[in-house]
Amino acid sequence: MSQTLQIEKANELKNKPDVSTVQFGTVFTDYMFTNKYTPEYGWSEPSIIPYQNLQLSPSCQAIHYGQSVFEGLKAYRQGDDILLFRPDENFKRMNQSLSRLSMPEINEENALNALYELLKVERDWVPDGEGQSLYIRPFVFADEPFLGVRPSETYQFSIILSPVGGYYGATQLNPTSIYVEDDFVRSVRGGVGFAKVSGNYAASLLAQKKANELGYEQVLWLDGVEQKYVEEVGSMNIFFVRDGELVTPELNGSILPGITRKSIIELAKHKGYTVKEEKIHIDDLSEDLHNGKVTEVFGAGTAAVIAPVGRLNIHGVDYIVNDNQVGEISLDLFNDLTDIQYGRKEDPFGWVVRL
Amino acid sequence: MSQTLQIEKANELKNKPDVSTVQFGTVFTDYMFTNKYTPEYGWSEPSIIPYQNLQLSPSCQAIHYGQSVFEGLKAYRQGDDILLFRPDENFKRMNQSLSRLSMPEINEENALNALYELLKVERDWVPDGEGQSLYIRPFVFADEPFLGVRPSETYQFSIILSPVGGYYGATQLNPTSIYVEDDFVRSVRGGVGFAKVSGNYAASLLAQKKANELGYEQVLWLDGVEQKYVEEVGSMNIFFVRDGELVTPELNGSILPGITRKSIIELAKHKGYTVKEEKIHIDDLSEDLHNGKVTEVFGAGTAAVIAPVGRLNIHGVDYIVNDNQVGEISLDLFNDLTDIQYGRKEDPFGWVVRL
Ligand SMILES: Cc1ncc(COP(=O)(O)O)c(C=O)c1O
Ligand SMILES: Cc1ncc(COP(=O)(O)O)c(C=O)c1O
Repeated sequence: MSQTLQIEKANELKNKPDVSTVQFGTVFTDYMFTNKYTPEYGWSEPSIIPYQNLQLSPSCQAIHYGQSVFEGLKAYRQGDDILLFRPDENFKRMNQSLSRLSMPEINEENALNALYELLKVERDWVPDGEGQSLYIRPFVFADEPFLGVRPSETYQFSIILSPVGGYYGATQLNPTSIYVEDDFVRSVRGGVGFAKVSGNYAASLLAQKKANELGYEQVLWLDGVEQKYVEEVGSMNIFFVRDGELVTPELNGSILPGITRKSIIELAKHKGYTVKEEKIHIDDLSEDLHNGKVTEVFGAGTAAVIAPVGRLNIHGVDYIVNDNQVGEISLDLFNDLTDIQYGRKEDPFGWVVRL
Repeated sequence: MSQTLQIEKANELKNKPDVSTVQFGTVFTDYMFTNKYTPEYGWSEPSIIPYQNLQLSPSCQAIHYGQSVFEGLKAYRQGDDILLFRPDENFKRMNQSLSRLSMPEINEENALNALYELLKVERDWVPDGEGQSLYIRPFVFADEPFLGVRPSETYQFSIILSPVGGYYGATQLNPTSIYVEDDFVRSVRGGVGFAKVSGNYAASLLAQKKANELGYEQVLWLDGVEQKYVEEVGSMNIFFVRDGELVTPELNGSILPGITRKSIIELAKHKGYTVKEEKIHIDDLSEDLHNGKVTEVFGAGTAAVIAPVGRLNIHGVDYIVNDNQVGEISLDLFNDLTDIQYGRKEDPFGWVVRL
């Protein structure tokens, strides 16, 4: 991105929807950021253009061979200010994903600046309702028209924006239910589980469907080698409150290193909690749920921030957590984290970027 | 595909290239087949249209969440006849891939008929040079404009065609070299290794690069659980000649069930060889290479049909197979199989479809 950012004006702007009735990820703003990579010039065509269809060859590499990575973060409104939460972490992780799929890395600083410029253009799209935000989706995909298993020579990097409602109202966290999956495997060490790559999500859908059919909202994945250690939930990392301490699976190459996960660990330590990252055996977990040592369970991810888990099925046995009510520590962390994200509380960590 | 096939004429046709100088997968014919899926009507818009760009939303599901599967087969010319090799097997496997990614299955018979119609229109594109063919790429991808981890509601099924040269001249099989990968993992049981899905290929590129940098042409993958059992090569299955018998890893959920693999097993048995499908421990393999029990190694896949392996690196040790020469049995099977594919020899199996 050595070249300067071009901006192409849209002829007309869309009507902004009532975000409280909008379905997640279905409405997009007027503009998108786009950049193109060629071997000769690198990332050299940064521009903000009207939101529009991609023109792709039917032999486009990303469609056939899956070189495609993405990120997800949110912009929050506080009065006239737009707040971002640790956006640098997203572009850092994007580069880790890119590198795992043999794709060219982006310049993180340029990407951040491009995002800021795009948000300046699209300021009015950041909603101000309770729990609402502007979901930001950066993604990079291979567009070379070529059928053969080797890295593409050309790529596109885009950022699109979608206004979204809260998953739940701020104080109305609805406990979710999860099914521990014994057969299907999401990822294994040596694979691409730690990267945010398109293929991981398609591969997870069948297990998700199975969990839904069995009456659970989400899947809890076990490790791919022994199928015994807790990894993560569909698109969230997982935390347990055990003997008053926070415990979460340690990063091992097959778990996605969530930015919410990382932030909760830092925030909780700051608040004086003991936090442990360790291997969690599923049998130990069921025992600790049974004997009452584990008192709260929650998922952590950008979309829901914190999602309390009220019911958990392990090897066919249902465990009810905290009477299927939102736990105290879950709520405390949720409030603190969202207060920082929306600028309602001081940010002692330097996480928030204010535009 | 209850509706009848529509054909839209192209305004002008491309000049046909000299296939002997064309790079694999870079030139496409004048027409493509396409069909669209909606929840209301299923696969209901079959048509043959001029080869053209796809118009995809930037939030297209396949790009973000990887619901995308493909197939690969070839059409061969014999005089005025066009020959296909077991095309029914490809659409059968495509349905297995689709089902694994929670995508709607296609009607195999309708798909076959669509392919036949497309080939009738594009007959002249099937080249007649030694080892040349028309590579056929059916693929299905999710095109719903929606950011969320759930199956797409809409899909596109296309078939595109690309004239290709032989990987090697018929009697000039050049032995390839393979590197047995100890760290990276392609797939694990419970995952999507048996399915021909886009994400598997992107995930394999980094190991491929490593092998190339170490001086090997291809990767031989081990199983994802113990990293001890031989699985397959980049885009081929693998065979060994051991004590005069053919041995290949048994299908286990993480290996792609190759149609060439299946055909070689059937052909070899028909010719009187003993064929074994079994778990092959990498240490047993290196021992058998060392003590001369394994006399030939070859990959088997649509692209190269049979690719003899002349050099194999296991845990850092290089093993030279059959003096880096094409083995007798490899050549025998290659000749028989390609003779059947090109119609030069009688097909006792009913594999060939003649158009
Ligand atoms: C598989 C998976 N795990 C965990 C997370 C949580 O990551 P983050 O907190 O960065 O949103 C996500 C993404 O959102 C994910 O897709
Ligand atoms: C991973 C993989 N294994 C094996 C094969 C061989 O399959 P087939 O003989 O059907 O071409 C392929 C595909 O071509 C492949 O992509």
